[in-house]
Amino acid sequence: MFQTFDETASPDQGPPRLQALRGAMERAGVDGFLVPRADAHQGEYVAPHDERLSWLTGFTGSAGWCVALRERAAVFIDSRYTVQVQSQVAADFEKVDWPATSLAEWIDAALPGGLVGFDPWLLTVTQKREMEKALSGPTLAPCPNLVDEIWQDQPAPPQGAVFAQPVELAGMAHDEKIRQLAQGLGKARACVITLPDSIAWLLNIRGSDVAHNPVPHAFAILHADATVTLFIDPAKTADLGDHLGDSVTCRPPEDFESALQALAGPVQIDPASCPVAVIDALAAEVIENGDPCILPKARKTAAELQGARDAHLRDGAAMVRFLSWLDAQAPGTISEIDVVTRLEAERASTNALREISFDTIAGSGPNGAIVHYRVTEGTSRTLTEGDLMLVDSGGQYVDGTTDITRTMPVGDPGPEQSEAFTRVLKGMIAVSRLRFPKGLTGRDIDPFARAALWEVGLDYGHGTGHGVGAYLSVHEGPQRIARTGTVPLEPGMILSNEPGFYRPGAFGIRIENLIAVEHAPAIEGQTVSDSLRFETLTYVPIDTRLVVPDLLTDAERDWLNDYHAEVLARIGPQLDAATRDWLEGACRAI
Amino acid sequence: MFQTFDETASPDQGPPRLQALRGAMERAGVDGFLVPRADAHQGEYVAPHDERLSWLTGFTGSAGWCVALRERAAVFIDSRYTVQVQSQVAADFEKVDWPATSLAEWIDAALPGGLVGFDPWLLTVTQKREMEKALSGPTLAPCPNLVDEIWQDQPAPPQGAVFAQPVELAGMAHDEKIRQLAQGLGKARACVITLPDSIAWLLNIRGSDVAHNPVPHAFAILHADATVTLFIDPAKTADLGDHLGDSVTCRPPEDFESALQALAGPVQIDPASCPVAVIDALAAEVIENGDPCILPKARKTAAELQGARDAHLRDGAAMVRFLSWLDAQAPGTISEIDVVTRLEAERASTNALREISFDTIAGSGPNGAIVHYRVTEGTSRTLTEGDLMLVDSGGQYVDGTTDITRTMPVGDPGPEQSEAFTRVLKGMIAVSRLRFPKGLTGRDIDPFARAALWEVGLDYGHGTGHGVGAYLSVHEGPQRIARTGTVPLEPGMILSNEPGFYRPGAFGIRIENLIAVEHAPAIEGQTVSDSLRFETLTYVPIDTRLVVPDLLTDAERDWLNDYHAEVLARIGPQLDAATRDWLEGACRAI
Repeated sequence: MFQTFDETASPDQGPPRLQALRGAMERAGVDGFLVPRADAHQGEYVAPHDERLSWLTGFTGSAGWCVALRERAAVFIDSRYTVQVQSQVAADFEKVDWPATSLAEWIDAALPGGLVGFDPWLLTVTQKREMEKALSGPTLAPCPNLVDEIWQDQPAPPQGAVFAQPVELAGMAHDEKIRQLAQGLGKARACVITLPDSIAWLLNIRGSDVAHNPVPHAFAILHADATVTLFIDPAKTADLGDHLGDSVTCRPPEDFESALQALAGPVQIDPASCPVAVIDALAAEVIENGDPCILPKARKTAAELQGARDAHLRDGAAMVRFLSWLDAQAPGTISEIDVVTRLEAERASTNALREISFDTIAGSGPNGAIVHYRVTEGTSRTLTEGDLMLVDSGGQYVDGTTDITRTMPVGDPGPEQSEAFTRVLKGMIAVSRLRFPKGLTGRDIDPFARAALWEVGLDYGHGTGHGVGAYLSVHEGPQRIARTGTVPLEPGMILSNEPGFYRPGAFGIRIENLIAVEHAPAIEGQTVSDSLRFETLTYVPIDTRLVVPDLLTDAERDWLNDYHAEVLARIGPQLDAATRDWLEGACRAI
Repeated sequence: MFQTFDETASPDQGPPRLQALRGAMERAGVDGFLVPRADAHQGEYVAPHDERLSWLTGFTGSAGWCVALRERAAVFIDSRYTVQVQSQVAADFEKVDWPATSLAEWIDAALPGGLVGFDPWLLTVTQKREMEKALSGPTLAPCPNLVDEIWQDQPAPPQGAVFAQPVELAGMAHDEKIRQLAQGLGKARACVITLPDSIAWLLNIRGSDVAHNPVPHAFAILHADATVTLFIDPAKTADLGDHLGDSVTCRPPEDFESALQALAGPVQIDPASCPVAVIDALAAEVIENGDPCILPKARKTAAELQGARDAHLRDGAAMVRFLSWLDAQAPGTISEIDVVTRLEAERASTNALREISFDTIAGSGPNGAIVHYRVTEGTSRTLTEGDLMLVDSGGQYVDGTTDITRTMPVGDPGPEQSEAFTRVLKGMIAVSRLRFPKGLTGRDIDPFARAALWEVGLDYGHGTGHGVGAYLSVHEGPQRIARTGTVPLEPGMILSNEPGFYRPGAFGIRIENLIAVEHAPAIEGQTVSDSLRFETLTYVPIDTRLVVPDLLTDAERDWLNDYHAEVLARIGPQLDAATRDWLEGACRAI
């Protein structure tokens, strides 16, 4: 199993560790210390070596900060974690609603002046600047990581093997990517890249240093002469053979800082992801710009799109086997953990699963209303008559990353649930069917996913869709369908389309397909010269038992019936007879 | 008639006047001079006294600039006017596509250095700053208006009478508005207001200095002690009686500059509308902020909303009489000018019409595709079998400002026209039916008006809606439904809802109602605590002969039939028997 169900909360560990940290602060001559839930690569997942926030405080959420001062300490968590933090973190830490209250605001109120220490590898240039701008009393001071100094049995940094991503799947040789990016550098003579999925994309490699995201921890310098220096632990690349070729030179990570110092300028960095330590080490002139890999990585190649289609059909068959099994379980007989276990087993049985894309969210009844729910031994519910069962999951395959949510009835949930499900579905169909002029951003599209809910005073508190990588991170930018989606959508971008509705304490609904932006075919008489639309990648039935047909327009019903006909045609041939029979029923036209 | 059909183009006047202007530049010691199509109040319409751009160049469009240099001169016009400018402006003036090419870019390329003169009353603080930032060679230099120096028979500044807007229609006494705004000034001790519709709204007055917009030319200083000094020609306020009361002191316009010099600070100005001359005259500290009248003016009072409803029913009856007349005219028998004349006569017959809201756009056949078409004796077409007839018009009544577009068939235009009409209608209905969470901006709503057109590769090049005043300017901000609509919509805001489609050289379609933002009633189980929706103000039939019923969803058809039932109920009682019969046919359910 890739997923575990442990409760990792241990609030009793916090106070003595905080005490030890304060001793280290005293020795370092600082009045405070910042502990982000981040490593030097600013990814969504960190290795055990970098779990400083949870080690110190007990808090295991995927985002947050601790600020330790001499007399006070606080854990900063967003609204997803307000309940969880109470059970995980001791009373010695204040719990602060973040980003409603910023770190700087809280520090300013707690500390009239003095030095607040931070590890310059764990703060980005932008984070430090914004904090400095907002702090009126205290000063930020780089220092060694004080948590590392007191963490006796800190795990070693990860040493996950790096392997090549075949060019047949990547669609472009890494030499060619390097060449194109080097050409685009303009005045800059080099560019520092610190994001692991950018490095993985650029060099057509994958890694295994953190959970779920197949990326290596490494730093890279792209030179204007179309060569790359890769700073990576040699143990990781032992099996990589000659994949990297002549244009890439590997050096050990401990050479990175001196290489930065020696770089002739101008040197380009991305302030949003670059650690403060990097910019501090550079002696040359700095040009600030976005990470140049991000946009080309988001525009998938034809090979990556074909890989995504293949991965989705494979994953779709696993999902269908799972759904047919789930449908056969009587209410009251299985738990959420059973659901997660069975689903991972079905994916594993494809013999192609490299990892799951993220911990499966399997929320029944009221647990479905917790948007980022992770089932543990302590929270796992038995699926009960009248529940909705929300399952959000995905697989990492060598040819693509999947992410799918389906919501199923356990017995007969009732009319409120069916109406909400149908309205969520209408939004999901509205996005799927949209044809739109090139130049629009995800912000312009997001309202279409919500209008049917708005009509009856409902909405959901998350974005409609995030970008998805090609056997990379399941959450990738810059594309997204959300109010914060300010980048024009471009052909080849893969996005999720996942409207939802959540009734706290009662049920949650989410329906999610992955979609890829593509050119729409020309229409005679068109005045928009370049229209875009979405290709659907996910083919898994949507539970029609929860659909209120009268709430659908003819066009929406046609879309749903056409979709199910495609599901049957594409997934059916992969199934045994019994499962295919079940799928035929699930795909029956309404 | 408020509208005329003259051709005012006279390209032969330009060259000698340009020659005279160059003489004035020589005497003033400048190497160039800027001539905007603007007065000191930055409105959409200028008085004959301020028609410097058209006097100098011949160009009569509603926006544009002339830059005169010693050797070269150019007229800057946007895409609406590229055809018109050719027939109006002599070859001595280059024609520049603006804002694609900015004034600063063109000047920089034409003039390596030197002084470019400008009238500091006609440039806003923001305009001057942006131009200065973009100019690398020449310097901007304030100077007297050189066009005024050479314009022998320049008309006098307007002296339109000012009259009181009854508090029963305004919904709030002007003393109360002054008090509330003065309270909101914060640190500022005074605020300079130069926008005529802001002054008209604040003091509950109306004027007649320019066409179509019932506003007076004046300047005002709002003091923190809740008094106002109004700088206005005493001849204009002769009939105003004691309306202004003790809180407002009137002074002649020539006192304005010395009053600014004497003001104690800090003084608030709106850099987007404030003339450079004002900020230059201020000796005190300046606080830059938006004009404080704009947002409260946009949130109409209950009385203004009731006035808008009343004005729309009156205007709607005039529109229905006009449409029934139009429907009785055989193809080939009337001209666009006949259409405009008849419509204005119907409005005038209400005995309540103060002005038309703007020159009626009456475009038949290919003229309908010219978005800002104004019919003249030279362009007027005879309405011909197979035409679409687009009529965009409005009336200024003491209780409200109207703006309506309807598109009618002349004979039987054909299926392409009907499909496009139906898709435009779908967009107009989508906006009308929308319920949405408070906080959304017009940008978030604009795509709903376009999706049905996008579906077949069509779109329109203008925004979906503009704000509308209460017996004030028919175009008012900050609310709008467009990609540039960044202000959250609030209850009481009146907007147009006017999607369209234009096939250049063939036909134009636009369907426009005015709508007002209102709180939506609560719905049991809602999770959005404050939803908004639109109240429809306009009740005039939409031509169902151009509707393809199969393209409408059930909900859209229901909306259209309900709308027509309301039209009949609200407008029918105002009509004679024959017109009511016609209206019954026009409102028949489809």
